[in-house]
Amino acid sequence: MTRVGIIGATGYGGVQLVRMLLDHPQVEIAYLGANQNAGTRFADIYPHLGHRVRLTCEAVDPVAIAKRCDVVFLGTPNGIAHRLAPALLEGGCKVFDLSADYRFTDLAVYQQWYGQERTDQATSSTAIYGLPELFREPLRHANLVGCPGCYPTASLLAVAPLLKQGLIDPQSIIIDAKSGVSGAGREAKIGSLFAEVESSVAAYNIARHRHTPEIEQICTQLAGNPVQLQFTPHLIPMARGMLITLYAQLRDPGLIGEDLLTVYEAFYRQSPAVRVLPSGIYPQTKWASGTNTCFIGMEVDPRTNRVIVVSAIDNLIKGQSGQAIQCMNLSLGYEEMLGLPTVGFYP
Amino acid sequence: MTRVGIIGATGYGGVQLVRMLLDHPQVEIAYLGANQNAGTRFADIYPHLGHRVRLTCEAVDPVAIAKRCDVVFLGTPNGIAHRLAPALLEGGCKVFDLSADYRFTDLAVYQQWYGQERTDQATSSTAIYGLPELFREPLRHANLVGCPGCYPTASLLAVAPLLKQGLIDPQSIIIDAKSGVSGAGREAKIGSLFAEVESSVAAYNIARHRHTPEIEQICTQLAGNPVQLQFTPHLIPMARGMLITLYAQLRDPGLIGEDLLTVYEAFYRQSPAVRVLPSGIYPQTKWASGTNTCFIGMEVDPRTNRVIVVSAIDNLIKGQSGQAIQCMNLSLGYEEMLGLPTVGFYP
Amino acid sequence: MTRVGIIGATGYGGVQLVRMLLDHPQVEIAYLGANQNAGTRFADIYPHLGHRVRLTCEAVDPVAIAKRCDVVFLGTPNGIAHRLAPALLEGGCKVFDLSADYRFTDLAVYQQWYGQERTDQATSSTAIYGLPELFREPLRHANLVGCPGCYPTASLLAVAPLLKQGLIDPQSIIIDAKSGVSGAGREAKIGSLFAEVESSVAAYNIARHRHTPEIEQICTQLAGNPVQLQFTPHLIPMARGMLITLYAQLRDPGLIGEDLLTVYEAFYRQSPAVRVLPSGIYPQTKWASGTNTCFIGMEVDPRTNRVIVVSAIDNLIKGQSGQAIQCMNLSLGYEEMLGLPTVGFYP
Amino acid sequence: MTRVGIIGATGYGGVQLVRMLLDHPQVEIAYLGANQNAGTRFADIYPHLGHRVRLTCEAVDPVAIAKRCDVVFLGTPNGIAHRLAPALLEGGCKVFDLSADYRFTDLAVYQQWYGQERTDQATSSTAIYGLPELFREPLRHANLVGCPGCYPTASLLAVAPLLKQGLIDPQSIIIDAKSGVSGAGREAKIGSLFAEVESSVAAYNIARHRHTPEIEQICTQLAGNPVQLQFTPHLIPMARGMLITLYAQLRDPGLIGEDLLTVYEAFYRQSPAVRVLPSGIYPQTKWASGTNTCFIGMEVDPRTNRVIVVSAIDNLIKGQSGQAIQCMNLSLGYEEMLGLPTVGFYP
Repeated sequence: MTRVGIIGATGYGGVQLVRMLLDHPQVEIAYLGANQNAGTRFADIYPHLGHRVRLTCEAVDPVAIAKRCDVVFLGTPNGIAHRLAPALLEGGCKVFDLSADYRFTDLAVYQQWYGQERTDQATSSTAIYGLPELFREPLRHANLVGCPGCYPTASLLAVAPLLKQGLIDPQSIIIDAKSGVSGAGREAKIGSLFAEVESSVAAYNIARHRHTPEIEQICTQLAGNPVQLQFTPHLIPMARGMLITLYAQLRDPGLIGEDLLTVYEAFYRQSPAVRVLPSGIYPQTKWASGTNTCFIGMEVDPRTNRVIVVSAIDNLIKGQSGQAIQCMNLSLGYEEMLGLPTVGFYP
Repeated sequence: MTRVGIIGATGYGGVQLVRMLLDHPQVEIAYLGANQNAGTRFADIYPHLGHRVRLTCEAVDPVAIAKRCDVVFLGTPNGIAHRLAPALLEGGCKVFDLSADYRFTDLAVYQQWYGQERTDQATSSTAIYGLPELFREPLRHANLVGCPGCYPTASLLAVAPLLKQGLIDPQSIIIDAKSGVSGAGREAKIGSLFAEVESSVAAYNIARHRHTPEIEQICTQLAGNPVQLQFTPHLIPMARGMLITLYAQLRDPGLIGEDLLTVYEAFYRQSPAVRVLPSGIYPQTKWASGTNTCFIGMEVDPRTNRVIVVSAIDNLIKGQSGQAIQCMNLSLGYEEMLGLPTVGFYP
Repeated sequence: MTRVGIIGATGYGGVQLVRMLLDHPQVEIAYLGANQNAGTRFADIYPHLGHRVRLTCEAVDPVAIAKRCDVVFLGTPNGIAHRLAPALLEGGCKVFDLSADYRFTDLAVYQQWYGQERTDQATSSTAIYGLPELFREPLRHANLVGCPGCYPTASLLAVAPLLKQGLIDPQSIIIDAKSGVSGAGREAKIGSLFAEVESSVAAYNIARHRHTPEIEQICTQLAGNPVQLQFTPHLIPMARGMLITLYAQLRDPGLIGEDLLTVYEAFYRQSPAVRVLPSGIYPQTKWASGTNTCFIGMEVDPRTNRVIVVSAIDNLIKGQSGQAIQCMNLSLGYEEMLGLPTVGFYP
Repeated sequence: MTRVGIIGATGYGGVQLVRMLLDHPQVEIAYLGANQNAGTRFADIYPHLGHRVRLTCEAVDPVAIAKRCDVVFLGTPNGIAHRLAPALLEGGCKVFDLSADYRFTDLAVYQQWYGQERTDQATSSTAIYGLPELFREPLRHANLVGCPGCYPTASLLAVAPLLKQGLIDPQSIIIDAKSGVSGAGREAKIGSLFAEVESSVAAYNIARHRHTPEIEQICTQLAGNPVQLQFTPHLIPMARGMLITLYAQLRDPGLIGEDLLTVYEAFYRQSPAVRVLPSGIYPQTKWASGTNTCFIGMEVDPRTNRVIVVSAIDNLIKGQSGQAIQCMNLSLGYEEMLGLPTVGFYP
């Protein structure tokens, strides 16, 4: 059994990891770290898991953790992971970071958008971007993985086949993203209160959301040329789920929807976490809820010569913790979807 | 007192009309028409209005209605109004139609998208498009008004100043629309069930929604050239409210957000139903809920040279029945917002 | 015009007061107090009111406030009002307190349940309990009013006719209350986050909620004998609204539903804020949303000889700020429902 | 592998069965019956299951079904199962009925509350009531099981230990039930529309809900004396989940909460689907969502000498299809919780 530790175990990402790893046949949870809740039984924070989890949250000491764990997930705020990971790696752990710290090939971009100085390019450059559908092979040998969050995951899975095949004008990409509010984490904020969020939808951080450069970085790799795109996140009155509506101008005016469907199906043939929907069917986020599956549908508008791609994920699973486990499975040589849910409860 | 009749009084649009007209100081509700519910007390359908409404629903007989009413609102499905309106107009009524029947200057476009033959161009061409912010003067003399619904209202209010001033490339317009589910009406449909809608968001009718040609018709008038645009509606897990996120390419790369704010403020200075928000503030649909107000915010992205405009309305009020009353006020010479709510309850 | 001040203006109760007083024809808002937000424009906190409210929040100085206001609403946490009210009363203001400070005839009960010492029995004993349906006459001459919140309001309106007429065994009363989450106020708390509240219902403070002794105090007055009852509050995944389901054993096994309906209709004949529903109709909280109306329905179970009464209110209006304005109207000699909404938007 | 058929496969109960049986290691789904959808691919109705389910819905022919299935679940409306079951039993199937047809020991009670004549007492009397926590041993040998729905399941699990131990006055039982709207099934009804249900709570069928006699039947067996109780269902704005708040008068005024906790823990020690919560913790329905677990918390009120028990389940799993699988597991000799989810996703 692989011994797993989770640092930042009491947030929404942490509790997803705990819940899914409980059902994973090849791992045991050996350590739950949470500085603010050190000494508290995990079951006192999440009583619904009391019959399954007996562990107590502990303070974060990387050297001690490395002795007890083979794999460590970091569910800490941006700027923490790059201080913890080196000691964990040195202690022989594989590290899966859910923050932004290890997602950028160029730390200058990270510094510009996240405002933190970084001098660890040596370690950072060994990190693999944890999107299995695009980086499956490197992930099989990864010790340090920068796992993308919900916006880049759903956006990149929607656009990758188009860019890879050179079917669209990369500068025409517009991503209109709709996210459930759990993406804001388990933090007591007025903007996340039920009474504020319910019955309301709004955009935020227009033209300046931090995930923009991250999506652009991977799009640039896929296109082979620098890509600048439009990314607009919206908050939706639901706890879980994310929908991406992506617009782009087709290069070839003769392409029809069926052509693109063929391209997508080929691109994702080996990807068990992606399901391309039949023609005319668009995904609902409820279908993805409670699963590590991304549903993708698309349409071509012959009037405007645009393609519209819609992708849906569970923001906390395929958009966060489930994907991190998928990366772990690959790096440990397990079956890619081992222990991960693939069908949700409906309704 | 102006005597008002409502045909199609028991749907969501009808009950909004009833509720707001109860508070209107210059009208009395003289007739409630609903063929399916003829003979039923309105208060039996909506018990919460029992202390205010004593009327019984009646069958629809235009000649009889014209004798009892000065003004008639038509809240009937598409394709009904153009059969009822002529008799009502002949009987001396002013007619405010909430369906698509009288919104098109070219009936061929209506026939193409709505699949019904029309031979009433003579009557139809007297209809005014019921968006007061763009057609205030003609509405003052209108007897027949084709009131736009929520998608065109929120879209056109978001884009009108840009097109009127020639600030954007009209072919670059993308409208990503998010609608509360009451827009689907009070019809028993599986897709509108609570258990299907809650915790879910999805796109529908991509590249083929019927409101596309209607929005394009007015945009074409504003731009002075034929406009084709992208319109994608989404269903949001909320009862009321609509948010439009509109993208367009700026013609002048030197424009900044403050410039546009000035343009919008000038454009809507005489429009009591539109509120342009200060720089950096984007609207939430909850702010508009229960009001006849449209909130508009915007941002310029200097990286992509696009403008992103966000508008929020209550889909059933400014996006439907409230706007119809606003048109009625203009055509009867009342103060434009008379009897209409301008501030909502929050939260 | 009556000059009105609101202390604690930025909470959910405060913003309701502001919104409704804006529509009140006999008052002007002269002062908004909020120590934490002193110096901030009210419209910066609630941008949707920016076109109607120009005031800036100010620090709380009772002597200064008394000079500028004829009436002051106190929307402060429990334990603050009894320190502010004396100076306001001395300065000639009428005071309407929305906290628990002035609701108890016996301050020992307050001290026991709220844990604060009180030595102001002299002032406190001049306070009138602000439930107009039970204390209309004393309220006409009141200068200090302790306005009840949502649980006591909906509970007492449901049970009052039964106790007053001696129709039930008072010791058999069970109140099962369902509340929207806005009742917890605009405080950043994990338990009020959207992701925690949505799709969930739970009981809290079973057998020890602070509103129990307050409800019992008024029930005791109505029954003429000490009453102890069961009160269980539940949190419901909705922002606004409250439903009370009240159970009691009938004294006379021959009573039928129609008898009770007659009793309730007689009891509330002069009460414009209460609407007794026809036989067989039970209220939905949505009907009451956005109104100062309480809807009441009831049923007798001949099998168990119990009466079940259901009442529905908007917890923030009839259950809080609307009722406080209703009390103000009475004490200033205005029409009882002046400026208060009586019909909601549906759906 | 046990071959399983589902009749009524396209409703909410059916799709739960399909989803859970897909994960069950000892069964294969051999037949999906749905007369209205006969000939339609199941994946066309539920596209999110398209990657897992290849079956097409078929017409209902009991004789043919019996040849292809070892076990049949009946998810049909009340009154259908008793016409289908005899042929299935004769064909050698084990039958698990999710309707009310086989829940009553006395068919006269069924006839009185469900309005259908029944002459099949011989077959009917072989049926076991499918609540494993109370009828585990008989279920191990059952061929025909009448599986209870959500209201009786959550109610009986809450009250059983009290009645079995004689700790309460049975005539004092009041059950205030709160149900998610999926309990109404996947039927197009106005009362189940999102716009009607959201932001609203209401009681229905007060004093006359059909589950009352069913709960009373089992309570009578537990108490050893005829029990009549009060049952009031409420609709809550959530898709899934059920909370029962149960009130009863304690016989012994000296009992405290810890005593009852001990009684409950002992009663459910061998029941893997029930989790008794620690003192002071009350369940939230969200904890039970997506699981076959019932959470129970309780409190004693020394002031009123009442016990208040709160139980939470997922109405579609432990309250319906999960419980039916639990019964199947017992009757086939599998581990009781085989293939059933025990921990939910949170939030």
